[in-house]
Amino acid sequence: MRTTSVGVFKVATRGPGDVSGLMSMIGSGAIDPASILAILGKTEGNGGVNDFTREYAVAALCTALAPQLGLSPQEVEQRIAFVMSGGTEGVLSPHITVFTRQDILQRPAGLSGKRLSIGMAHTRDFLPEELGRSAQITETAKAVKAAMADAGIADPADVHFVQIKCPLLTSERVEAANARGHKTATTSAYSSMAYSRGASALGVAVALGEIATGVRDEDVLRRYDLFSNVASTSSGIELMYNVVIVLGNSMSSTSEFEIGHAVMSDAIDAAAVLAALESVGLRAGQQTPTGSKLVNIFAKAEASPDGSVRGFRHTMLEDTDISSTRHARAAVGGLIAGLAGTGAVYVSGGAEHQGPAGGGPVAVIAKFSN
Amino acid sequence: MRTTSVGVFKVATRGPGDVSGLMSMIGSGAIDPASILAILGKTEGNGGVNDFTREYAVAALCTALAPQLGLSPQEVEQRIAFVMSGGTEGVLSPHITVFTRQDILQRPAGLSGKRLSIGMAHTRDFLPEELGRSAQITETAKAVKAAMADAGIADPADVHFVQIKCPLLTSERVEAANARGHKTATTSAYSSMAYSRGASALGVAVALGEIATGVRDEDVLRRYDLFSNVASTSSGIELMYNVVIVLGNSMSSTSEFEIGHAVMSDAIDAAAVLAALESVGLRAGQQTPTGSKLVNIFAKAEASPDGSVRGFRHTMLEDTDISSTRHARAAVGGLIAGLAGTGAVYVSGGAEHQGPAGGGPVAVIAKFSN
Amino acid sequence: MRTTSVGVFKVATRGPGDVSGLMSMIGSGAIDPASILAILGKTEGNGGVNDFTREYAVAALCTALAPQLGLSPQEVEQRIAFVMSGGTEGVLSPHITVFTRQDILQRPAGLSGKRLSIGMAHTRDFLPEELGRSAQITETAKAVKAAMADAGIADPADVHFVQIKCPLLTSERVEAANARGHKTATTSAYSSMAYSRGASALGVAVALGEIATGVRDEDVLRRYDLFSNVASTSSGIELMYNVVIVLGNSMSSTSEFEIGHAVMSDAIDAAAVLAALESVGLRAGQQTPTGSKLVNIFAKAEASPDGSVRGFRHTMLEDTDISSTRHARAAVGGLIAGLAGTGAVYVSGGAEHQGPAGGGPVAVIAKFSN
Amino acid sequence: MRTTSVGVFKVATRGPGDVSGLMSMIGSGAIDPASILAILGKTEGNGGVNDFTREYAVAALCTALAPQLGLSPQEVEQRIAFVMSGGTEGVLSPHITVFTRQDILQRPAGLSGKRLSIGMAHTRDFLPEELGRSAQITETAKAVKAAMADAGIADPADVHFVQIKCPLLTSERVEAANARGHKTATTSAYSSMAYSRGASALGVAVALGEIATGVRDEDVLRRYDLFSNVASTSSGIELMYNVVIVLGNSMSSTSEFEIGHAVMSDAIDAAAVLAALESVGLRAGQQTPTGSKLVNIFAKAEASPDGSVRGFRHTMLEDTDISSTRHARAAVGGLIAGLAGTGAVYVSGGAEHQGPAGGGPVAVIAKFSN
Repeated sequence: MRTTSVGVFKVATRGPGDVSGLMSMIGSGAIDPASILAILGKTEGNGGVNDFTREYAVAALCTALAPQLGLSPQEVEQRIAFVMSGGTEGVLSPHITVFTRQDILQRPAGLSGKRLSIGMAHTRDFLPEELGRSAQITETAKAVKAAMADAGIADPADVHFVQIKCPLLTSERVEAANARGHKTATTSAYSSMAYSRGASALGVAVALGEIATGVRDEDVLRRYDLFSNVASTSSGIELMYNVVIVLGNSMSSTSEFEIGHAVMSDAIDAAAVLAALESVGLRAGQQTPTGSKLVNIFAKAEASPDGSVRGFRHTMLEDTDISSTRHARAAVGGLIAGLAGTGAVYVSGGAEHQGPAGGGPVAVIAKFSN
Repeated sequence: MRTTSVGVFKVATRGPGDVSGLMSMIGSGAIDPASILAILGKTEGNGGVNDFTREYAVAALCTALAPQLGLSPQEVEQRIAFVMSGGTEGVLSPHITVFTRQDILQRPAGLSGKRLSIGMAHTRDFLPEELGRSAQITETAKAVKAAMADAGIADPADVHFVQIKCPLLTSERVEAANARGHKTATTSAYSSMAYSRGASALGVAVALGEIATGVRDEDVLRRYDLFSNVASTSSGIELMYNVVIVLGNSMSSTSEFEIGHAVMSDAIDAAAVLAALESVGLRAGQQTPTGSKLVNIFAKAEASPDGSVRGFRHTMLEDTDISSTRHARAAVGGLIAGLAGTGAVYVSGGAEHQGPAGGGPVAVIAKFSN
Repeated sequence: MRTTSVGVFKVATRGPGDVSGLMSMIGSGAIDPASILAILGKTEGNGGVNDFTREYAVAALCTALAPQLGLSPQEVEQRIAFVMSGGTEGVLSPHITVFTRQDILQRPAGLSGKRLSIGMAHTRDFLPEELGRSAQITETAKAVKAAMADAGIADPADVHFVQIKCPLLTSERVEAANARGHKTATTSAYSSMAYSRGASALGVAVALGEIATGVRDEDVLRRYDLFSNVASTSSGIELMYNVVIVLGNSMSSTSEFEIGHAVMSDAIDAAAVLAALESVGLRAGQQTPTGSKLVNIFAKAEASPDGSVRGFRHTMLEDTDISSTRHARAAVGGLIAGLAGTGAVYVSGGAEHQGPAGGGPVAVIAKFSN
Repeated sequence: MRTTSVGVFKVATRGPGDVSGLMSMIGSGAIDPASILAILGKTEGNGGVNDFTREYAVAALCTALAPQLGLSPQEVEQRIAFVMSGGTEGVLSPHITVFTRQDILQRPAGLSGKRLSIGMAHTRDFLPEELGRSAQITETAKAVKAAMADAGIADPADVHFVQIKCPLLTSERVEAANARGHKTATTSAYSSMAYSRGASALGVAVALGEIATGVRDEDVLRRYDLFSNVASTSSGIELMYNVVIVLGNSMSSTSEFEIGHAVMSDAIDAAAVLAALESVGLRAGQQTPTGSKLVNIFAKAEASPDGSVRGFRHTMLEDTDISSTRHARAAVGGLIAGLAGTGAVYVSGGAEHQGPAGGGPVAVIAKFSN
């Protein structure tokens, strides 16, 4: 088994096109550009169909990294997994998290326990009519297993966060499917984001054995008792395939970091956020009894589909002026930022089949003290 | 000194025009309509200039209470203080809090300590050009002192929450001032809400001795080091004067309730929310070591005017699609709801001069266990 | 055949709760409250699920008219047809149009031609699962025929505008259907508005013979080649049945007004607006060669579902911050107001099966010169 | 006097990062990249402070043109004037208009009349506290005169459109000014866009002699009787100086195009749009009696600051959910698209001091028939 060293760097951005922070860390030698495997970012768009800050951020990063890697911008986009989650409502703060991985000869003697590991894979291109349906589920499950292998993780219990970037439907894509005689799962671009996120999450759940195989098309966005505890999926207009990033702990890693997770049962589940922090030796408010230090929190948020939270009605699903994903990110982002002591956390909207209905996964990466 | 019995009832609403919950409690005898002094509500509008859910809720309540009180709807609106705060972003849940007060002959022997007391007053009508300026500050300060006296509170330290409803400017009101040769503090209706809230809060601070008198017109919305720790002000289109409601603890009250407060230093100040809970014997998540029980939390939220929270940039002030007050309510509402265990809390936007810049007061009312 | 005198009064409003204009006209004797049959209004909400300005306006009108009619507000709401269309985007100006009808003994000798006539009917209450499906189509068609008879109109060619108010789904209504083992056409409140509007419009088309009977559930919001040229449907949260108002010209009427219509083939069809004006003797810009005078224009607007207008892409369907109905009302409202010379026109959003895809009916009421 | 040939090309875009249309025209030889002087675009953002589609479009164009011109992307941005106006509300369709200019030896014999000419200039960088004040007015006026000379235009009557791109304030820029002891005209980013647009427009009016010199700081956004009939100004976050583009007709040009203009007196001034079309031989609906052909229309839109249009109240300034600039673009865009027969027109928001209050300039470019 190969041994890897995995690094994690959180870098604030001044706008979706701002690459200066990352470039400065490359310039100083803190980050070796050749080791960058994935970049997860929060950009300040609306997180919806017409959120162009995601593709703009990716374009800016690819253009900036191209000369560093001796590649064209297009080749950079193929090499590194970029997952930009739009929407920094409320106190959420735009930033990117850069994951690096380098092979090393062998694990140093005396290094204890499993440590942060990362693996990647992607599916084939989907047809518009496959989005939100079993084809997307099945292909995603395959890619999750491939990414686990890439991460050196065999036990699903060691997987703490699976980030997926998935496609959405546009008027043009719906039209293209219709022209070939196929109906898409929905004709609404906005709704298609939910279908694609949901099917992708079910793919994770299948791969990790959280649910049985054989999920049917009609279960997507209906059978909310089927879900993954570690899936986080974001849809974007810029691709037609799923990119899968598995984050977990592995004996094959010599990283200074570790990851843990919990599951929020609803949007106000402060206890789950605290449990996730405690799983990696942290407490609320950035107090660090163990000497460990918070790097970032990754969570999913959604408006509970039944219209209430712990018996009290919410109004997120009835608001025609602000989409429910924006409401949910703002609220859950406020809670997590309050407990984490910082708004620079990755809270992403649209948690269909990611955690129980109205809730969602919350993962924490911490840096060991020594 | 007169002795009063003060009651607090939180009632969920199914829409801004829904009065069924309150009517049902009146029907069952749980609430005597003649004892209702004030109703504070969260309604599901946008909380901005064109939020008509506030006046709609007041109209519905007045129409429903009129036959109960043998008054016309207009007379009900004069008799009871209605403060509707628009905006239930995120997990916030629409509800009203009904405050009742009845004179009683004498305080029962053996009743311990200060208990929840409430007092009210209002200013004269303001001219459009007085809003956001020293006239509004001075008149508000007078009304706060009158309301303290009405509440049987002499020591400012016993005041824990001062809710004020204040006017805003419309195109027509600006025009009217111009026609008389006067300039208003701003010509923007939306900005005028901030000016009016700010000046009203400064009036509270003056009345309670939190700041010196002599605040100048140009200090409003500029000198953010001047603020009150207990002021909560909401502007609405439906009135031209300030309504002042003082909530505190008093030996003159025999209430089953008590109130405490803390000040959030920023929008993610979880410690302050916990301190406010603890001040009335509560903990996070509705755990009740003392047997006391949470009734409601009253807090103010705002986007920090310097554009960042604990060193990380927020994007609330640059968002042209969602007003910063909506962002801030959603985020702070998420945090408070998480710690309180319920979204039925009163979080109101626009905390100018209410707590430090970017922060705000947070008050908690609890019911004693016995 | 009975003979009627039909009046039309356009009254500007200062807010959704403002009834002063109408009350003043009643006070002066210009309007006999007992003759009021229907009130169509444009209110300044978002026109979406959470637009409470519609029900607020109705509540305010019912409360104000109750003493005039010697009825309770609830009885007024049963007696008069209130159709409030939310959304006054762009230059659209909030107003109500009051339709009155009085029986008269006989048509004066020498009165020429067909004149404005109005008739009303309503369906039974619908179950949530019937909305957007054939049950709603069939029941609506029945009601249209009843309303035509009430208007004294036998020939469908004399029908120029059929306004329908129809229900929508809320989380609670979807839940109720689920609890009884039924699935609704959609689980999204916002989408349900389109389904309900669409099925109602198909009901009009069936009644007037514009399309064949036997429309299937799956044709709704799919077969956009099926539509009515005169249907205008608005969905609101406040009712569970359809209210149908037929406007046309009839020999049984002695009205000083007449109505005509045309069909906009797309959202920029200026020629259709001009044709509608000309059908009642008017020209652009309120020029009145015949001496006739514009009273109001009634039109429906929508974003063309194929994502383009005359070959050029529009972005209304991909905007996550502003709903496409708001975009469409603003744009079509701008065009019609420009040609009419006033923003006080009734342009309503959501034109599913009302005119061709992306277009919609446009009707004009004019007052004869003498 | 030098003689130039000026070309105008309208190219639809599929997204803010889409450069394929322009690249295809360069590839086919239709456009010589070396001749590109300016690109005006409509991008599909919100047109507000956080509209990143503008800078994204510019970045994409610079990156694509760089190899064509043998320059770096940064050098392309210096060489070509890019003016991206955000906001394609309603029927407006995203597109760019590419202006080319080439020197030619001499004007062909027999070529009649003045023809489309273009000139450019820019101001120095502004300090944050200079925005919206006399410094910005004065510097802009200088630049307008320089751009007229560059266009070969001596008579202000031959200037039909002056497009300016100007800066706005961000929290950081306000902070920077404060740190140096200076106050900016406003602390709100959104308001600063209006100040900057207004001062820039006043600079045009001064340069063209439409108003006297000596405009004072306090006249900006107050003295709306001071305005230019041909100024069109857009503010963006991406620059700190003003870029000025003058479009007019000149004997020095041999262009196949001509330009004319009119002034809309309010947002529903259909007659002005028709007059602008007629000034270059066009009629409504793309009818072309003279054989001339519409290329594009350039107009400015705004919500009338007095809250009404021809006596009827509008609600654009009181809407907390949609900014008034979005409302105004949608409405005026609907009218102009209706009369032009296409949504691919350049309608830009924020017409402070550009045309009379509530109105704005409207310019039309047509291609001669032969």
